[in-house]
Amino acid sequence: MKAAVVLLSGGVDSTTTLALAKKQGHSLYALSFAYGQRHARELEAAQRVAAACGVAEHLILSLDLGRIGGSALTADIRVPKGRSVQAIGAGIPVTYVPARNTIFLAHALAWAEVIGAEAIFFGANVLDYSGYPDCRPEYLEAFERMANLATKAGVEGTRRFTIQAPLLRMNKAEIIRTGHSLGVDFGLTWSCYEPTADGKACGLCDSCVLRRKGFAEAGLRDPLPYAA
Amino acid sequence: MKAAVVLLSGGVDSTTTLALAKKQGHSLYALSFAYGQRHARELEAAQRVAAACGVAEHLILSLDLGRIGGSALTADIRVPKGRSVQAIGAGIPVTYVPARNTIFLAHALAWAEVIGAEAIFFGANVLDYSGYPDCRPEYLEAFERMANLATKAGVEGTRRFTIQAPLLRMNKAEIIRTGHSLGVDFGLTWSCYEPTADGKACGLCDSCVLRRKGFAEAGLRDPLPYAA
Repeated sequence: MKAAVVLLSGGVDSTTTLALAKKQGHSLYALSFAYGQRHARELEAAQRVAAACGVAEHLILSLDLGRIGGSALTADIRVPKGRSVQAIGAGIPVTYVPARNTIFLAHALAWAEVIGAEAIFFGANVLDYSGYPDCRPEYLEAFERMANLATKAGVEGTRRFTIQAPLLRMNKAEIIRTGHSLGVDFGLTWSCYEPTADGKACGLCDSCVLRRKGFAEAGLRDPLPYAA
Repeated sequence: MKAAVVLLSGGVDSTTTLALAKKQGHSLYALSFAYGQRHARELEAAQRVAAACGVAEHLILSLDLGRIGGSALTADIRVPKGRSVQAIGAGIPVTYVPARNTIFLAHALAWAEVIGAEAIFFGANVLDYSGYPDCRPEYLEAFERMANLATKAGVEGTRRFTIQAPLLRMNKAEIIRTGHSLGVDFGLTWSCYEPTADGKACGLCDSCVLRRKGFAEAGLRDPLPYAA
C-alpha cells in the first residue's frame, strides 16, 4: 500500500477525503493541527474519524497561529451568524486564516518526505467556499510545483509529490453523498465554529449553514444536534 | 517606512539579511522558530540580534518539527563533524530538515499578510550550501508565485508579496564582509550545531567549518570562542 498524508480537520470535507484516500488503497497518515482555533472540538472529531477509518498514524501538531492573528478563527474577531449562502459566497470571509492552508500543506509535505509518501490529500473545494484564495486550483497547482522544488525527494527525482484535492469541484451535497456512499459516519464529524455550552452546533455560523444546506440537498439526515 | 518580515535564525546569514533590510529603510518584523532544533542557543542569539538591530517586533513561534523528524537537527541522527568544505558541498546534508524553509516562509507569509508587509527577507544562499533544495532561486521563485495565489492580499491585488534573498549569490566571506560593513556585531550571532558544555562552538560541525572559512577569507576575526 502506498502511504498518503491526509489533512484532517474532522469536518465533512476532510473526513470524506480521508475515506476517498482509503478507497484508493492508500495507507493513511492523518495530519491535524491545534492552531489556536476557536472550535477545538473539531480536533476531537478528527481523532474519532481517524480511529474509525483505521489510519496507520494520526499526528496532531501544535501551531502558533493565534500569535499571528488576523482571523475570526484565531483572534478576537466576531464569527458572523445567520448569513445567507449568497452572502457566505461573496468575498473572502473573516474566518479566512492568513496563509493557513500553505502552513498546513507545508507540514504535510515535510511528513510526506519523511514517511516516503507522494500523495497529499486535501479536502479543498471551490464551489461552496469560493472566497478562500488558498482553496483554488491555481493555488494548489502552484503549491505542488513549489513542493517538488523544495524537497530532497523532489530534487533527486526519487518521488513526485502531488496535491490530491478530490472534492475540488463538488458542492457540499455531492461531498456528503460521496462520504455517505463510502460509509462515513457523519455523526463523528464536527463543523460548527461556535458550539453552545451544552455541546450543540450553533446552526447559524457559515460552517453550520453550508453543512445543513448540503445535507438537505443530499436528502440525508445530519446526525449532529443543533441549537438553532 | 514599509514593513518587512525577516526570517531570523541568529546566524551570520540571517543577521546580515536583517541589517540589509534595515539599510533599505524597512521597519523590521523579525520571525524566529523554536522547532526542536538541537542548537537552541541560536534563539538566544536571534533575540540579541533583534534587540541590537532595533526591530519593531520579534516573534518566536513554536513548531512541532521534532515530531515529524527526518533530520539530524530535529531527530536522533548524528551531526557530521570535521568534514571538508568539499564534502559539505556534495549532496544534501543530514542537517536538511524536510520542508523546513517552506514551513518558515509560510509563517512569514501569514505574518506579512496580517501586518501589511510585502517583503519577506530570507538569508538563503546557494554557493556554500548548494545541497539544500529549498535555498535555490527556482524554489524561491516558485514559493513567491504560490504566495501571491494563496493570500487575500495577493488575490485582491492590493499587495504583491516578494521573497527577498539578498545573499543568494554571495559566498560566506562576502556575506561576512557585507554584515561587517553594515556594523553587524557577529559576537551576538551563533552558528554551531553542537556547542560544548562550557558554551563554546564545537568548531567541527558543517556550520562551524563554513563560518570559520568565511571569516578567514574575509580577513576578519570571528569573535566566537571555539573548542577545537
